[in-house]
Amino acid sequence: MNAEIIAVGTELLMGQIANTNAQYLTSRLADLGINVYFHIVVGDNPGRLKSCLDQALERSDIVITTGGLGPTKDDLTKETIAEALGLPLVLHQESLDYIRDFFEKLNRPMCENNVKQAYLPAGCEIIPNRNGTAPGCIVRKGEKTVVMLPGPPKEMIPMFEETVFPYFEGKTHQVIGSRMLKIFGIGESEMETRIMDLVEQQSNPTIAPYANDGEISLRVTARGHDRDEVEALIAPMVQEIRKRLYPHVYSDAGETLWEVVIKLLLERGWTLSTAESCTGGMLASSLISIPGASRVFDRGFVTYSNEAKIQELGVSRETLDTLGAVSRETAEEMVKGLAERTGTTAGLAISGIAGPDGGTPEKPVGLVYVAAFLNGRIESLKLNLRGDRQRIRTVSCLNALDLLRKMLLGIV
Amino acid sequence: MNAEIIAVGTELLMGQIANTNAQYLTSRLADLGINVYFHIVVGDNPGRLKSCLDQALERSDIVITTGGLGPTKDDLTKETIAEALGLPLVLHQESLDYIRDFFEKLNRPMCENNVKQAYLPAGCEIIPNRNGTAPGCIVRKGEKTVVMLPGPPKEMIPMFEETVFPYFEGKTHQVIGSRMLKIFGIGESEMETRIMDLVEQQSNPTIAPYANDGEISLRVTARGHDRDEVEALIAPMVQEIRKRLYPHVYSDAGETLWEVVIKLLLERGWTLSTAESCTGGMLASSLISIPGASRVFDRGFVTYSNEAKIQELGVSRETLDTLGAVSRETAEEMVKGLAERTGTTAGLAISGIAGPDGGTPEKPVGLVYVAAFLNGRIESLKLNLRGDRQRIRTVSCLNALDLLRKMLLGIV
Repeated sequence: MNAEIIAVGTELLMGQIANTNAQYLTSRLADLGINVYFHIVVGDNPGRLKSCLDQALERSDIVITTGGLGPTKDDLTKETIAEALGLPLVLHQESLDYIRDFFEKLNRPMCENNVKQAYLPAGCEIIPNRNGTAPGCIVRKGEKTVVMLPGPPKEMIPMFEETVFPYFEGKTHQVIGSRMLKIFGIGESEMETRIMDLVEQQSNPTIAPYANDGEISLRVTARGHDRDEVEALIAPMVQEIRKRLYPHVYSDAGETLWEVVIKLLLERGWTLSTAESCTGGMLASSLISIPGASRVFDRGFVTYSNEAKIQELGVSRETLDTLGAVSRETAEEMVKGLAERTGTTAGLAISGIAGPDGGTPEKPVGLVYVAAFLNGRIESLKLNLRGDRQRIRTVSCLNALDLLRKMLLGIV
Repeated sequence: MNAEIIAVGTELLMGQIANTNAQYLTSRLADLGINVYFHIVVGDNPGRLKSCLDQALERSDIVITTGGLGPTKDDLTKETIAEALGLPLVLHQESLDYIRDFFEKLNRPMCENNVKQAYLPAGCEIIPNRNGTAPGCIVRKGEKTVVMLPGPPKEMIPMFEETVFPYFEGKTHQVIGSRMLKIFGIGESEMETRIMDLVEQQSNPTIAPYANDGEISLRVTARGHDRDEVEALIAPMVQEIRKRLYPHVYSDAGETLWEVVIKLLLERGWTLSTAESCTGGMLASSLISIPGASRVFDRGFVTYSNEAKIQELGVSRETLDTLGAVSRETAEEMVKGLAERTGTTAGLAISGIAGPDGGTPEKPVGLVYVAAFLNGRIESLKLNLRGDRQRIRTVSCLNALDLLRKMLLGIV
């Protein structure tokens, strides 16, 4: 089966937003074994939308549209598709009740044009929308399936996951499951070498890599008759990959390194503080964005100047004068002072040169030292990072977190 | 004139990346007065690419492709387009020399298949690529124009700006210029009311609004025979908008609020420190990401716990016990302690409830206090923000910066 995604909305053709919906849907359709050959973006124009739709119905088994389900006169996706398929739009009372209820809960009056959103093609399957007023729908016509979803990702994604994914899963008479392995501290090519044979030999489960700034993800996807069979196919593969890439797989449930470290600390009832120079609060800010962090994170220092490192963390002036702010000794003194002053179980310190300026032949841009403290023990790392300012800072934070993760797990 | 953008690349159809190139190009083509009616994404498949191309050449005056100019056998954009247009590919010696030179500078051997990148459709106009090996090109065929650009945005964007934008500007026999006004502290509808007549009456310059989290941008674009005429059209409009939206326009050169505040401090030779609770280092981290920030930013505190607020900033336990961490008094004591302890000219403090948990009927999620210190004076604001954790934190930072901006400019 192959699919085509049509995003409808003039805001996409004015450059106001990128078509991230197509990216999301494509990746999830791949998990279902459905190939996507085309993404189309077209404005709120019935003639052009109809021409795209006609073409898509000709060349693709499944057509998924996003956008154009709103209450205004510009929103014409449903009307255009219904007409193209020769189906009347009929009032779906349950959806109308839901929309009225939605506005009541918000304490806002429902406009009469919202009623339009409850009109859906006759005989369609409704896709309920928990996060907005526009229901979606699935329409079958001969061998073709058309799925209509709203544009806002906050509405579209849950609707796809809760209704559309299971719908196609049912059509394939298979159950599909996947597990996202998150990997840090190993290069993409080194990883490929270590698991090449697994990637090449396997068709069920399949293994798909995704590379990000300094991190790699592997999605392991299996198909079977039921959840147990799928899990029985996935589990040994995950175990094998974990073994081959040890100790670099930090999650097999798609978590971030931040979430993993916070969880490990929460489980132990331990606390954390941070001292940052070149990352300037990025480490603290990312940790605090994790729910539950308030029970773990105590405080953070952004000690950008030498004076701040001396006054707030007790780094010795001699170390700064002789070895410099970007040195292993400074990073270790930062984390030691941090631990002494805050009394937290764990501490992380980062000092480096994020660039674009400030590099020298001895200490080039990308030279970063990270140090971690845990229950009286200190470990540190020297990093030589490549890339722009933002990348150097992100990867520095990841290295600091991974060092603490390994200390928490007794790996280092 | 109307244009169509075809992005070529299987990675786009696997969900690995979003088509941000189309977003960028669309917005810049709008500045040229060129309407974009379709975005297409197609894989590295010559048959499907050819069918998209044929259709685009039929319905659009300008076809812009991104991607598929690489050295591998999969990269077939140029070959497919040349064939569709009936043009041979010929070696462009200057491009080949450039590619050889590019590899030499990187100290890496050039693969023989990179030679393919220097073959271009006969009679085309070359688009030099300063940041990669693949040159782009512009081909004219009858009334149609085809522009081929590489996929990586770091290569594509400079090539578009340096060669393609001026090319189309020349075709229109006009010069086009624009100015980006950045606005904070006023709602979108309030802004629209104040400038509605300008937006509706004007066709040259045009005014296009873009809304972001808590911020609004207005792009003022004018066309004329030369730069002076364009500037003479833009300047009075910018002045009029600034007057009507006073004091909310913080930049007419597309700067961020972070950049503006750093610049104002740099000009005065002043320094800044920060104390953050719910924003957890986001304010410090964003400030430090601005080049030049190291001469302004001294240090930052992330005082998440009450103990940290007392120990690091000298907030009184009584204030915390009686009025709570989220109160105007706490925010003011935070910024006062910060200024006393760091001795910086300026200081910013933020304390609030970013959610999703932690809200009460008296202090709901979104309640945030920001306080600013400047040369002995303290000002503070109470905010009631809506949205998720991330949005509340971002908008809190913007409010803190805008408060300091107004103090620096003598507006408050």
